[in-house]
Amino acid sequence: MVRTVAVIGAGPSGLTSIKSCLEEGLEPTCFESSDDIGGLWKFKEVSEPNRASIYRSLTINISKEMMCFSDFPIPADYPNYMHHSRILQYFRLYAEHFKLLQHISFQTSVRSVRQRPDFSHSGQWEVVTENREGQEERHMFDSVIVCSGHYSYPHLPLKDFSGIESFEGKYFHSWDYKGPEDLYGKRVVVIGIGNSGGDIAVESSRVAKQVYLSTRRGAWVIRVLSDNGLPVDMKYNTRFVHILFQLLPVNWLSWFGEKKLNAMYDHTMYALKPKHRLFSTIPVINDELPNKILTGGVMVKPNVQQIRGSSVVFEDGSVVDKVDVIVFATGYNYDFPFLPSNVMHKSGHRVGLYKHVFPPTLEHPTMAVVGFIHALGAIMPQAEMQSRWVTRVFKGHKKLPSNQAMLKAVEYDTKDMDKNYIVSKLVPLQVDFVSYMDDIAGEVGVRPSLAWLFFTDYPLFKRVLWGPVTAYQYRITGPGKWSGARQAIFTQFERMFQPFKTRQVTYLLYIHTEDASKIFVFKINVHWYQKGYYTMMCCSAHPCTRWRRSRDVLWWAVC
Amino acid sequence: MVRTVAVIGAGPSGLTSIKSCLEEGLEPTCFESSDDIGGLWKFKEVSEPNRASIYRSLTINISKEMMCFSDFPIPADYPNYMHHSRILQYFRLYAEHFKLLQHISFQTSVRSVRQRPDFSHSGQWEVVTENREGQEERHMFDSVIVCSGHYSYPHLPLKDFSGIESFEGKYFHSWDYKGPEDLYGKRVVVIGIGNSGGDIAVESSRVAKQVYLSTRRGAWVIRVLSDNGLPVDMKYNTRFVHILFQLLPVNWLSWFGEKKLNAMYDHTMYALKPKHRLFSTIPVINDELPNKILTGGVMVKPNVQQIRGSSVVFEDGSVVDKVDVIVFATGYNYDFPFLPSNVMHKSGHRVGLYKHVFPPTLEHPTMAVVGFIHALGAIMPQAEMQSRWVTRVFKGHKKLPSNQAMLKAVEYDTKDMDKNYIVSKLVPLQVDFVSYMDDIAGEVGVRPSLAWLFFTDYPLFKRVLWGPVTAYQYRITGPGKWSGARQAIFTQFERMFQPFKTRQVTYLLYIHTEDASKIFVFKINVHWYQKGYYTMMCCSAHPCTRWRRSRDVLWWAVC
Repeated sequence: MVRTVAVIGAGPSGLTSIKSCLEEGLEPTCFESSDDIGGLWKFKEVSEPNRASIYRSLTINISKEMMCFSDFPIPADYPNYMHHSRILQYFRLYAEHFKLLQHISFQTSVRSVRQRPDFSHSGQWEVVTENREGQEERHMFDSVIVCSGHYSYPHLPLKDFSGIESFEGKYFHSWDYKGPEDLYGKRVVVIGIGNSGGDIAVESSRVAKQVYLSTRRGAWVIRVLSDNGLPVDMKYNTRFVHILFQLLPVNWLSWFGEKKLNAMYDHTMYALKPKHRLFSTIPVINDELPNKILTGGVMVKPNVQQIRGSSVVFEDGSVVDKVDVIVFATGYNYDFPFLPSNVMHKSGHRVGLYKHVFPPTLEHPTMAVVGFIHALGAIMPQAEMQSRWVTRVFKGHKKLPSNQAMLKAVEYDTKDMDKNYIVSKLVPLQVDFVSYMDDIAGEVGVRPSLAWLFFTDYPLFKRVLWGPVTAYQYRITGPGKWSGARQAIFTQFERMFQPFKTRQVTYLLYIHTEDASKIFVFKINVHWYQKGYYTMMCCSAHPCTRWRRSRDVLWWAVC
Repeated sequence: MVRTVAVIGAGPSGLTSIKSCLEEGLEPTCFESSDDIGGLWKFKEVSEPNRASIYRSLTINISKEMMCFSDFPIPADYPNYMHHSRILQYFRLYAEHFKLLQHISFQTSVRSVRQRPDFSHSGQWEVVTENREGQEERHMFDSVIVCSGHYSYPHLPLKDFSGIESFEGKYFHSWDYKGPEDLYGKRVVVIGIGNSGGDIAVESSRVAKQVYLSTRRGAWVIRVLSDNGLPVDMKYNTRFVHILFQLLPVNWLSWFGEKKLNAMYDHTMYALKPKHRLFSTIPVINDELPNKILTGGVMVKPNVQQIRGSSVVFEDGSVVDKVDVIVFATGYNYDFPFLPSNVMHKSGHRVGLYKHVFPPTLEHPTMAVVGFIHALGAIMPQAEMQSRWVTRVFKGHKKLPSNQAMLKAVEYDTKDMDKNYIVSKLVPLQVDFVSYMDDIAGEVGVRPSLAWLFFTDYPLFKRVLWGPVTAYQYRITGPGKWSGARQAIFTQFERMFQPFKTRQVTYLLYIHTEDASKIFVFKINVHWYQKGYYTMMCCSAHPCTRWRRSRDVLWWAVC
């Protein structure tokens, strides 16, 4: 019977794991090597070895309603896409609200995690930690949750870049990038068009003489600012769209999506068009890149063939001379140096974890990896969902299949990923956000049933079906049910609109009595108005007594 | 008979005026107070009094084909929206090509321009200049072209901001803004949502703690990156659209345009919606502002009511505390301190110039103002057109109406502007780009005739009607006809596409023989592909011998 849990890392995955432990009555101890919570999201002016690193300007590309934990909405006045400092603020609020800090040992690194000699009987683990004075300590735990992330070990494939040793300029990995300060007037080649590569190219182009963005495959580039200015995930990451993806051929959906993207900026004309289809991998999210291409600050180039002195030769034979800086935005490797090698089962080029969480070969399910995943959605709600499952399993409320069955499932997943995604060795963690959330929610027993909602709570049904798949949906029912979940779903668009309410706009409003015998015209100041979305701010003293609600989901009025 | 011409200022208007003088066989002498050409577009690290000033990152918001002079296309590989350094480079090429530099006296300020005592007889002017040693010199000229611009005198309406004297932070006019270096971590209020205000708010938000953008009226905000990624002016500033504007009610066009803009980002939701309609004034051009609002870096606020210590109180009663910096992006006043006051006729709140060029009260038409205008289009082709007219008038090829008729026309224009535009006292120079170009072109005798083109050169007709109104159209015929104009119009989209050709994209190409008995499939690398626009880069050795051209305007293929 599991009682004590070691949680390794106090980033978002670690924090929510601690909370899940507490909810299930377990005793978590979190070891965090740095002096603060937040993991990746704790900005440091200088990157520290074996730790994730972000740049000064980083803004998350998932909107706040889609990234928040399921029972702790982000304050309404926070912007929809938050700067890293705001995200850290949110984590602080979360940690304080659920009293998580007292369970964290800061400045304590985990050196090794080993099965105890009696593991086959007890399922217990020995965890060796080192504090800031370098003193080692041994602990015994009934179970371990690994939340060490997958952005700590930069992948710098220098051997693929012949002649790099002759390069006369400076080169570094995007992990080392903090801001464009050192790039004033420089000629910069950024290699790799992932989210980091795109961000760095755009940002440095504001000060550099010229930026070249080299890409092997090209990319589909999407914007967070979607139709009517709505956050793209609030608009499209809905359960209805998810159902469409189950029903329609993915090639047709790709065709449709590509058409829509090309209507914004033709990917061929912008030299971005990749060989793969839109939904074959996670697209790059970058609102400014097309503009920087149009204004000439960023030039898209093919793969680098060779580096010669200060020149970079590309595969099409074109040469860029006098390059001052090369930035390798070539992604990350993952590593769990503190784990015994026999714990990690290899499956193809990925770590074989049952549903991306449980090592499938252990005698006892007392170890789990949380937050080791990548989707077109935020890690926070996914990690939370994983940790809810993990603690249910630790507690014994849920059973895992046999090792044999788990291994089979892992192999099947690997094949399935190979089939559905362009998975390079660097992105072996890809899942579909809603499918995965629903899958794990099914394990926990909190997956919302559309049929049940249809008959018992039709207004909620509509919002769950047509609205964005916010994590609140997984708190409606089942273990860990949160009484505020329904309300949170009903108010999710209000929280989205709140940060826009900074300036009133004047409108004429026509109101008529029910028999239309009288019509009143008001000049009202409204804060926002969105496709029939109204909030009256100053119609307290008017003669209308009733409001008709049409288009139920989107209309409401306060008198 | 005019022979000598004083040109005051060597910015774009001055340069093109010199060229027009030379073309007409006049003898221009240009006085430029600074040490370089370019005027506004010559960046200086510190703003200099009585001179226009731009910021380090400034990129023009008119695309290169729409901003260039009519007989000197911008090099094909230049980006479509150019940084100020590129624009200056272009002016250098222009000045060298047409040998303009030898006519410019640098570091020579014009102190006064006065009618000579015998003006009523000779029409001549006395120009007093001052060189860098402070030595004055008197010159006599047959005529004067004033090209001193209208961005030299910042408008800083401090008296409208009660309590500004108590402000504890720093404040300055956008004229003083060079870059965001001093705004790191600051709380910034930018006042005014013109193009400068928008740019400064966006740029400073990248480093500031928070930026508030205060606007009295709101604004319609458009993007330069238009449908399919085309430059917005290449797409919409066409003669066909211009004709639509003559035929359809402007309110309907505004409604249509607003709908399209709101589909990108709802202006009410984004707190931008102004009281005026879309086509009531020149919209703000800013591709990044909506994004910065969405990510919270910029908050749109109403007009400032009061300043109290370090707090700014807005008209809706909201207060922002701890403001470090206020930037007044409140526009410019115009002034011609060197001209005698009796030359400038006042008409309402604007300077009454006949067709924005000629003072209407002079006995002889030997003075003109060039480039004193503002449209949703670049000043360069407009100034060029004006100078072509001016030199034709100076030369005696064209006559102006009587002073009485000119005064009447000026008053009519003023009333017309009041009716059509929301013209505040700060923007009295507004014209409609195509209407104005056509009007002055009519004076010069170079307005392209659609009917004539239809019968004599149908391919050109199509491009002139459906394509963007590039200045080349005014070199097809009449005085100053340029033999390269037709070719320049046929290749304008090629020059637009050229800077995108930085990475090849692979396509499958299906080609069949005319009877469709054989189909060949090629894997081709194309550089761009835009709605039927193809360039084959590597189909030299294939067996097809003929190409069908369908959709003539957009299709062509090189085998």
